[in-house]
Amino acid sequence: MSTLVTGIGELVTNDDTVGPGLGVLPDAALVVEDGVVAWVGPASVAPDADRRVDVGGRAVVPGFVDSHAHLVFAGDRAAEFEARMTGARYDGGGIASTVAATRAASDAQLRARLAALVAEMRAQGTTTVEVKSGYGLTVADEVRSLRLAAEVTPEATFLGAHVVPPGADRAEYLALATGPMLAACAPYARWVDVFCEPASPHAFDGEEARAVLTAGRAAGLELRVHANQLSAGPGVQLAVELGAASADHCTHLTAADVDALAGGTTVATLLPGVEFSTRSPYPDARRLLAAGVTVALATDCNPGSCFTSSMAFCLALAVREMAMTPAEALWSATAGGAAALRRTDVGHLAVGARADLAVVDAPSWLHLAYRPGVPLVRTLDL
Amino acid sequence: MSTLVTGIGELVTNDDTVGPGLGVLPDAALVVEDGVVAWVGPASVAPDADRRVDVGGRAVVPGFVDSHAHLVFAGDRAAEFEARMTGARYDGGGIASTVAATRAASDAQLRARLAALVAEMRAQGTTTVEVKSGYGLTVADEVRSLRLAAEVTPEATFLGAHVVPPGADRAEYLALATGPMLAACAPYARWVDVFCEPASPHAFDGEEARAVLTAGRAAGLELRVHANQLSAGPGVQLAVELGAASADHCTHLTAADVDALAGGTTVATLLPGVEFSTRSPYPDARRLLAAGVTVALATDCNPGSCFTSSMAFCLALAVREMAMTPAEALWSATAGGAAALRRTDVGHLAVGARADLAVVDAPSWLHLAYRPGVPLVRTLDL
Repeated sequence: MSTLVTGIGELVTNDDTVGPGLGVLPDAALVVEDGVVAWVGPASVAPDADRRVDVGGRAVVPGFVDSHAHLVFAGDRAAEFEARMTGARYDGGGIASTVAATRAASDAQLRARLAALVAEMRAQGTTTVEVKSGYGLTVADEVRSLRLAAEVTPEATFLGAHVVPPGADRAEYLALATGPMLAACAPYARWVDVFCEPASPHAFDGEEARAVLTAGRAAGLELRVHANQLSAGPGVQLAVELGAASADHCTHLTAADVDALAGGTTVATLLPGVEFSTRSPYPDARRLLAAGVTVALATDCNPGSCFTSSMAFCLALAVREMAMTPAEALWSATAGGAAALRRTDVGHLAVGARADLAVVDAPSWLHLAYRPGVPLVRTLDL
Repeated sequence: MSTLVTGIGELVTNDDTVGPGLGVLPDAALVVEDGVVAWVGPASVAPDADRRVDVGGRAVVPGFVDSHAHLVFAGDRAAEFEARMTGARYDGGGIASTVAATRAASDAQLRARLAALVAEMRAQGTTTVEVKSGYGLTVADEVRSLRLAAEVTPEATFLGAHVVPPGADRAEYLALATGPMLAACAPYARWVDVFCEPASPHAFDGEEARAVLTAGRAAGLELRVHANQLSAGPGVQLAVELGAASADHCTHLTAADVDALAGGTTVATLLPGVEFSTRSPYPDARRLLAAGVTVALATDCNPGSCFTSSMAFCLALAVREMAMTPAEALWSATAGGAAALRRTDVGHLAVGARADLAVVDAPSWLHLAYRPGVPLVRTLDL
């Protein structure tokens, strides 16, 4: 069955054959067949279709591609957030509390929470989401996390090397995460990731991260890296050297890091919701863009450092706090996310792309940044 | 008919007889009769009622009281926002463009836009909103704006003294706004307001603002003031001297301004969405709170300097950017707004209050700040 989507006040295609930048078409229409974009053009010359959906003059954009999220977990860390923001003492255990709650939860509990978060994202215009493991940290709990993640997305990421679990021996855990745990998890995952951060005693240094990534690649997984979040560590250059799809966070970069990104194929994924929610300095997006680096925006939705699921909120932060233009921010939240996941079928709306459409309840896509905090975007279910 | 609202995981009452601060009751229930709270207490001892509504363990808070909004307008200024955020040159006319579009719009167009914005706010948990005129700036257009505002809220505010309209003589316009325009508008308004800002050539200085406010009071209106937004002008001290209900913005304050607020009955209403949307420094909320000043939070929803309608977003900004605690921010967005409107029937949920309930899709009200940008709150329609 074919569907003609019409009444599109402004259509963002991210197709540079349509126009520069976002490839915006005014007064547009689009035909969808079998979930794929079959025709794009001016509404005045749109072909017929089996049915019509009129969006009433609203703007339509590619669904958001959220390339970094941690959605398989249990427990609540709102009190930790409150303590952090008010400077109060707190020892609720941080990530260890999430690990303990996740291990203690039933499959049904984890599946319900994951489904609720994916639905919440979809209601806010996100049509592709990456989901990491990393709160299980035993073979059985990591496998379970990835099995559940793979039920909701093809972009499941093995993050056994999230942190060294409480009480574990560092070397033994690394051997597990690069050995039997990896072998058990790989069938359920597309990606391997590692939290490379020498500044944290719980995360992994450059050589440890290299071991995780090379083992993951040998097991058939593609690479992504938590890099340079808390300090200018080795993560970014390692990611570029190994040809990782994305280096995520990029908050603290040296000139050599920026040069490496500019000379490689690794996307820099910025997660400004984290800096918002931890009251930290934002990454320097302009420096990356000036160097020609491909920049993606994602939420990092997780119960600890950033519990937003709103790509529109991250886009508004990118404009306010990182001086990205509204067009750059929207591109990074859609096409940029697709690049960070090495997907060519999402993040744009040219013929042949997946028909992942998000409707903005406004005459222009600019309202995404112009109206911060307002739930203007929804996924168009066809 | 009476309704028992039950399954409330956490009930924020803002009632200090229930507990300190927000007066939070766990596992609570509430009975509503004829739109008024008739009973509040533990769910285990709740009385019967004609019907039951179960909110499934979610948190319930008083509906937000948004005490500062400009919702009667036409036109679109998204391009001006884009230019401001990217440092591009722009001469789309600013507020003058909104005035021209508002004058050119039909009653039906203005009413539809106003209704859409009020509905958007209500969908996000705002149950009381103040609405200002100020984009008409002729007798007929100001009367029309207030007539429409009064259709949706008892908190209609005459803001003829928003700016001196383009092309008008300053003294003549002030005479109009304190004379025939005021007389024509007063029947539709509860409040008079003035944009007191000597730093702006379009706004009004201290003596002009005094003339507007005293004339308004003589016409039976109560007072509120746009004060100290762009500079430490005379607005705050004038507001306190005249006993205004609220001084709004308070971004630039002297020690004498803080002392005046602490010694008077005027609420300081902070509008952090404006600083977000104009990339300006935020007001110093902690200084005001330390001095014992009553602080309210509001959106300032308007097409120029801040087009958010989300009180939850403003609350999250207050926590991140102004170091208000989550509890202070929620109080200011509810009870604080009620104080700024001199309302005792809203902003809290003690017996006798209006049953304006907002449901947070989370186990705790803390998620309002913990989950920025996520549309967690909705008004409970009973």
